[in-house]
Amino acid sequence: MKIALVGAGNVAGHLAKALEKMGHEVAAVYSRTRSHSEDLAHQLANATATESLNFLSYDLDLAVIAVSDTAIASVAKQLEVKPGTIVCHTSGSQPLAILAAVAGARTGVLYPLQTFSRSKAVDFSQTPILIEAEDEATLQQLQQLAKTLSPIVHQVSSLLRKHLHLSAVFACNFTNHLLGISRELLSEANLPIELLHPLIQETIAKAMQQDPFQVQTGPAVRHDQNVIEEHLAMLHHHPAYKELYLKLTQSIQAKHSAANSSKIL
Amino acid sequence: MKIALVGAGNVAGHLAKALEKMGHEVAAVYSRTRSHSEDLAHQLANATATESLNFLSYDLDLAVIAVSDTAIASVAKQLEVKPGTIVCHTSGSQPLAILAAVAGARTGVLYPLQTFSRSKAVDFSQTPILIEAEDEATLQQLQQLAKTLSPIVHQVSSLLRKHLHLSAVFACNFTNHLLGISRELLSEANLPIELLHPLIQETIAKAMQQDPFQVQTGPAVRHDQNVIEEHLAMLHHHPAYKELYLKLTQSIQAKHSAANSSKIL
Repeated sequence: MKIALVGAGNVAGHLAKALEKMGHEVAAVYSRTRSHSEDLAHQLANATATESLNFLSYDLDLAVIAVSDTAIASVAKQLEVKPGTIVCHTSGSQPLAILAAVAGARTGVLYPLQTFSRSKAVDFSQTPILIEAEDEATLQQLQQLAKTLSPIVHQVSSLLRKHLHLSAVFACNFTNHLLGISRELLSEANLPIELLHPLIQETIAKAMQQDPFQVQTGPAVRHDQNVIEEHLAMLHHHPAYKELYLKLTQSIQAKHSAANSSKIL
Repeated sequence: MKIALVGAGNVAGHLAKALEKMGHEVAAVYSRTRSHSEDLAHQLANATATESLNFLSYDLDLAVIAVSDTAIASVAKQLEVKPGTIVCHTSGSQPLAILAAVAGARTGVLYPLQTFSRSKAVDFSQTPILIEAEDEATLQQLQQLAKTLSPIVHQVSSLLRKHLHLSAVFACNFTNHLLGISRELLSEANLPIELLHPLIQETIAKAMQQDPFQVQTGPAVRHDQNVIEEHLAMLHHHPAYKELYLKLTQSIQAKHSAANSSKIL
């Protein structure tokens, strides 16, 4: 396929490189910021950097919009492609319908369910790709494309993709924040941060093998009030973390007592 | 060493088996519940199950107290060992001093920093063991013992062990709860729970390589208010999760704006 990337951030960069590696041609890279599109274009074999959203002169099969969620609507309005070109976005939270503004295009979604960082390569063979399209023919073409990137390709509606995205916020964004707090507390106590790595790895491995609620451990689920109060006192200089500690403890206890009641019933 | 295990739960079981494997003799296993001590004793080569805390007739080198945090003080009061026997507990949250009640013993702590489940073997070679003792000679002996179990042995004071335990609650107990919520939300949407596994693995791998606060992603750190409000609305049937979503989002935003201000300064 002959492809343009609209966007030059982490998602656009990793996708462009993976697509090229799989034999597709990335013909153009758009960014509002010239240096960003040039940076990415230089890392690709045949790509032109552009600041224009008029792609009429390119003979594109596909334009991939990989910009921030809040910029998709505005990009979609300005994008110009030949009639029949597939235009897809890569967002977990935005519906397919947001692309209705792109004149003449066949619209779809190609959402790689992974976290992308500038500095770290992405293994697309381990990355689920969720697709959606406005019609069956477009869906088939997106599916073929997605399968060149990953063996895990699912068709998921806009509504279900939103639910998946919400779950991902808990499992990844919020989990990452807790790991950050944990690391900060270790550093404050001058303890080596690596000490917790085996415990974190085992916790995650276990949570993926079994229902995490069934293997919950710690002072909250044991209702160990002495330890809980000591921990809250130790967090006096971090009122926000103290509040989180309390809310998470309450949520664990509520969940567990609900689970126990349902076992009795 | 000739060792008694006081307790027959997950920690006691995994420790007893690992100690035996490394050539130590587990001579006795105590539990208040006869069937528990018998279950564990049957899995060991030479252990007697007992309901008595009088170990005077055993020629022990070491008694390991591996009972719940709230039971340690009461067990310590009742425990009878020959003068000079080392008595240690295995708790992250309890101080060394809680063992002062054991008459005539040399006291210490041997805290394996790992999460233990009945059904899953523990790789002690990947488990940090934190030790503490009332005197240098006892510390040396506990260190020698710990090193037969794991290459990662650290001497950590009661106070620092408490800080480590608090960090572990955030990194493991609370993280596990969030993974449980995530899984529940996926199940409610009839989405396969495996879909998020690659994202979870990558999130954790990244959080152990870099400061998680530096690689935070998601709607909270992007201040994407539309998505945040949509997510809160989707959680209307889970008021406790909605509250957690809000508090975690606020904490991420507070952290990030503090980080940005300090960059400006």
